[in-house]
Amino acid sequence: MAREIKCIGVMTSGGDAPGMNAAIRAVARACAYYNVRCIGFYRGFQGMIEGDYIDLDARSVRNIISRGGTILKSARSKEFRTKEGREKAANHIKEIGVDAMILIGGDGTFKGGKVFYEEFGIPVIGVPGTIDNDIAGTNFTIGYDTALNTVIDAIDKIRDTASSHDRLFFVEVMGRDAGFIALNSGVGAGAEEILIPEEDLGLDRLLESLRRSKRSGKSSSIVVVSEGDKIGKNVYELADYVTENLPDYDVRVTVLGHMQRGGSPTCFDRTLASRLCVNAVELLLDGHKNIMVGLINNNVAYTSFEEGLKEGHGINKELLRISDILST
Amino acid sequence: MAREIKCIGVMTSGGDAPGMNAAIRAVARACAYYNVRCIGFYRGFQGMIEGDYIDLDARSVRNIISRGGTILKSARSKEFRTKEGREKAANHIKEIGVDAMILIGGDGTFKGGKVFYEEFGIPVIGVPGTIDNDIAGTNFTIGYDTALNTVIDAIDKIRDTASSHDRLFFVEVMGRDAGFIALNSGVGAGAEEILIPEEDLGLDRLLESLRRSKRSGKSSSIVVVSEGDKIGKNVYELADYVTENLPDYDVRVTVLGHMQRGGSPTCFDRTLASRLCVNAVELLLDGHKNIMVGLINNNVAYTSFEEGLKEGHGINKELLRISDILST
Amino acid sequence: MAREIKCIGVMTSGGDAPGMNAAIRAVARACAYYNVRCIGFYRGFQGMIEGDYIDLDARSVRNIISRGGTILKSARSKEFRTKEGREKAANHIKEIGVDAMILIGGDGTFKGGKVFYEEFGIPVIGVPGTIDNDIAGTNFTIGYDTALNTVIDAIDKIRDTASSHDRLFFVEVMGRDAGFIALNSGVGAGAEEILIPEEDLGLDRLLESLRRSKRSGKSSSIVVVSEGDKIGKNVYELADYVTENLPDYDVRVTVLGHMQRGGSPTCFDRTLASRLCVNAVELLLDGHKNIMVGLINNNVAYTSFEEGLKEGHGINKELLRISDILST
Amino acid sequence: MAREIKCIGVMTSGGDAPGMNAAIRAVARACAYYNVRCIGFYRGFQGMIEGDYIDLDARSVRNIISRGGTILKSARSKEFRTKEGREKAANHIKEIGVDAMILIGGDGTFKGGKVFYEEFGIPVIGVPGTIDNDIAGTNFTIGYDTALNTVIDAIDKIRDTASSHDRLFFVEVMGRDAGFIALNSGVGAGAEEILIPEEDLGLDRLLESLRRSKRSGKSSSIVVVSEGDKIGKNVYELADYVTENLPDYDVRVTVLGHMQRGGSPTCFDRTLASRLCVNAVELLLDGHKNIMVGLINNNVAYTSFEEGLKEGHGINKELLRISDILST
Repeated sequence: MAREIKCIGVMTSGGDAPGMNAAIRAVARACAYYNVRCIGFYRGFQGMIEGDYIDLDARSVRNIISRGGTILKSARSKEFRTKEGREKAANHIKEIGVDAMILIGGDGTFKGGKVFYEEFGIPVIGVPGTIDNDIAGTNFTIGYDTALNTVIDAIDKIRDTASSHDRLFFVEVMGRDAGFIALNSGVGAGAEEILIPEEDLGLDRLLESLRRSKRSGKSSSIVVVSEGDKIGKNVYELADYVTENLPDYDVRVTVLGHMQRGGSPTCFDRTLASRLCVNAVELLLDGHKNIMVGLINNNVAYTSFEEGLKEGHGINKELLRISDILST
Repeated sequence: MAREIKCIGVMTSGGDAPGMNAAIRAVARACAYYNVRCIGFYRGFQGMIEGDYIDLDARSVRNIISRGGTILKSARSKEFRTKEGREKAANHIKEIGVDAMILIGGDGTFKGGKVFYEEFGIPVIGVPGTIDNDIAGTNFTIGYDTALNTVIDAIDKIRDTASSHDRLFFVEVMGRDAGFIALNSGVGAGAEEILIPEEDLGLDRLLESLRRSKRSGKSSSIVVVSEGDKIGKNVYELADYVTENLPDYDVRVTVLGHMQRGGSPTCFDRTLASRLCVNAVELLLDGHKNIMVGLINNNVAYTSFEEGLKEGHGINKELLRISDILST
Repeated sequence: MAREIKCIGVMTSGGDAPGMNAAIRAVARACAYYNVRCIGFYRGFQGMIEGDYIDLDARSVRNIISRGGTILKSARSKEFRTKEGREKAANHIKEIGVDAMILIGGDGTFKGGKVFYEEFGIPVIGVPGTIDNDIAGTNFTIGYDTALNTVIDAIDKIRDTASSHDRLFFVEVMGRDAGFIALNSGVGAGAEEILIPEEDLGLDRLLESLRRSKRSGKSSSIVVVSEGDKIGKNVYELADYVTENLPDYDVRVTVLGHMQRGGSPTCFDRTLASRLCVNAVELLLDGHKNIMVGLINNNVAYTSFEEGLKEGHGINKELLRISDILST
Repeated sequence: MAREIKCIGVMTSGGDAPGMNAAIRAVARACAYYNVRCIGFYRGFQGMIEGDYIDLDARSVRNIISRGGTILKSARSKEFRTKEGREKAANHIKEIGVDAMILIGGDGTFKGGKVFYEEFGIPVIGVPGTIDNDIAGTNFTIGYDTALNTVIDAIDKIRDTASSHDRLFFVEVMGRDAGFIALNSGVGAGAEEILIPEEDLGLDRLLESLRRSKRSGKSSSIVVVSEGDKIGKNVYELADYVTENLPDYDVRVTVLGHMQRGGSPTCFDRTLASRLCVNAVELLLDGHKNIMVGLINNNVAYTSFEEGLKEGHGINKELLRISDILST
């Protein structure tokens, strides 16, 4: 039988994502609603290890729903990968009186949570917060939609100058292991080509595609490249290669970088964070644990950590096809 | 057996929505990809009646993916509601050599398309483009996500001044028959109350909720009101009623109005428009007709006009519950 | 000889404006730099009367430069208009040990500051913070540039739908006594007509201008109307009048309202606030008082309250001429 | 005596800047207003050489005021640096019947215009359009204000993630020869340090400043670096140097790149472009030539190309002082 939950802890971990504050707010407000104490730990697992925390009541999360970043800060903790580190965390949590934890982060965070639950029996629920969208147990992670819009805003600006000067731009976006951001922002920005880790387009096909673009009357082009693209060259090498082989093109490179992690979250990310976190609190109160919550077919659903981490839901290959047709 | 499709017409109709240009672009590019001629009719059914059109090739839709509004313009046509009007339209379409039509718009547009198909046998496919999100055959309509973000950007600004002056704002958003915009933007903006056509909160509960807000230490509040709210007072009357009954509150009203229809579409709306319209072209080429395309559980799916128009997919009542909990 | 200044108070008063937080930050940081204590009073003069304040050190204004609104809140204080109210304020200030005050606000704030200095000899410097730009002693007030950009963003969106539907929009912007916002945003948004308090265009000329627009091939139009426009009709009456007299036009109205007061400040407003407030602190430390600081010909300059309040710097009539030519 | 002007040509040249379209619109509309024909040349001097142009009437510039880039495209022309190239341009211009030219661009454009006038006697007026703000004859160039806001929006996002992870970011902005963008955006973004070509801060002082930041309790920092910074290391080398010397800091780099050239122009840039270009047309009609127009102390003024090009107006060193004080 589930121990009664009187105090819930919350933290944000891994790469930060827009909407993490909306998530923290939802945890704190749902706790207040159900008369449960809410404790926020700073810098993810590290704050649990160090006992670095703050009490969160309904008013202390006022007006943060619209803010990027995370008021609880985030970090990757090496110490938590050791048994000693996790033991310190468990001890602090018990001392403070925290009965269960909500972990907001990506797959690394969930793996940590799973081990932590297995070792110490502290109920844990994971909420997917990462711009990378690479978590199997949800169709969308918190922060992903905002990152997409940050990327297309930047590419729209780059398109302005690309068109004015008849240039070809390579734009590198985040996504070391997954091409979600590149693929969706590429379609949204109307990119001529999209290079992602999941598909090896090959250099020859890229050159051919760019030649065809030129022939079809396009004077400027955008190629969106995922960090972890399979083509085996980084974005600057790619640009050099194309310059050598297609001297007609005036080539430039932009690496969008960390601005993709910030900014005021979109309505989608705020609403997603709100729904998932209210449900996470309620699931803990109902005795659930060792699961992640996610949005599946527009409904909140939960999955065991095992399932949720199994393998990422694949990218939508249909979008590659759409992109091909639309770059006609 | 389906007649071979060599020329596809496209138009935008009803209230315009961000992403309509992305939709037009996708139709034109998909047609070019499949070597089908593409004709754009101006001002919806009215342009079909008047034979007012333009040839759209792959280059003529260059750089419009990021633009609000519709390059084909939109209108509501009274003449098309008459048999004579529709006959004129059918004749023009045959003269020009258009074999099938893609209609981008809301339920009024689809009803017109259904009748038109039944009377003249011209294959028709509907694409849901409206900020109202009130179409049964799709989880999301094109333009809805952008409108939500326009609304929360505006409310974030209003929240700044509401907080500075400890004020209560009533913010009216679009949605005469459906509360989708109000409900989702209200959760996204962290509104204290949300008034929608689907639920009669009642004046007493509104007053009680605002009193409770005050007691809980909130110094400012936002109430999001749908145009078609059931409470039976317009937003100014509501504000007056609250001012009379809660003299502690310094009340203001903002009616967001038509800016909700404009602006550069979000990544979601651009990608949605691209996917739906490429599929619409392919469905026509495959002999389908008298259907609408939509996004159902993240996949493109089609529905007969009969089904698609049956009744709007209801609002997500869970969000009302979430909103209640989060306004604690 | 000037008493040594060891503690400076700061407050924000009147209608709030984007950039007020950047101004508060600059006061607090400049005080920290010069080893002067800094006290922030809440809700303008009212917080001085009630002794409602907070200590501001360099870290307590962290990350507020980008935020709309004012962390010190703002208000209009009736009590401060009485001798008794001002006496309470003076007593609190002395008790707390505040040696001088920086008042961020508009002309009402400066008038209050002037009287306060004259009655109690407490050194006071005014910093112009208001979206209305109607202060003689500066070319630009803090918040004005942000409000202009908020307005043109909204009108760009309205233009999208106006163009799609061939409509005429009346857009009301803030400015009860001065047409700065209407005039500059009207030129920036490419409005067809601009109605401001300083000029009575007259209804006949408005109708004539709209007829000419139609004849010249314009299918949609935007008329920007200042709240305090001289034409003697409010924006809804104007719209009705035009609808009656120009039945060809499909007329709509949007009142932008309080969103004009909020939002993250532009670079111009942040830099302006930073420059003015560092100088305000330095001027107090140098023994100045009973003055306002402003930006005159791109340099920081100061003016006596008498001069600064004399009369507003007039609107730039050249812009009316520019607007006329560009709406050709 | 001035030849009567019946046809004015306009082009955009050099690096493109937001507001160039607003400038083109203003030239075309002012020409229409004064019944003068208006010709737009594509790709700057290159279009003049090739006779590549378009007629611009009042309607052909509809709705471009809000768009980034330039509908006339821009380029740097090597051929125009030769006598032969300029002769071709002069011949084309005479053949087409263009009586005078308006050149929108930076100092390279103005130098070309000066030589062209001297060689062929064709009246020429320059309008400063460049994001770099490095033109002596104006306080502000068209595009500069928009670029500043693009930069601070990006840095605000970077600040979100920098704060969440307690990181130090080096952000490189445009400005090879002048630090205007770095200096103003650095103050606007609340950067801890600003490195510009005009001042050699020195590596030691940079390290010292970052150490002091850390001691004062700042957990994250932003250093804005101008492309042409004097410190003699590029931004990646700088980051490596700091990482080696201050191992406490977790350092990251973002190079903002070409997105700074795009985007919808701010109200300031649209109004500036409108004012300068209407005046440019009127000055040509009044017989002026061989000058540039600019904004000096908020008024439109003109300067001979000689004066306008003499030396850039220096950066505002007061801002360096302000930045120092505010990064306390």
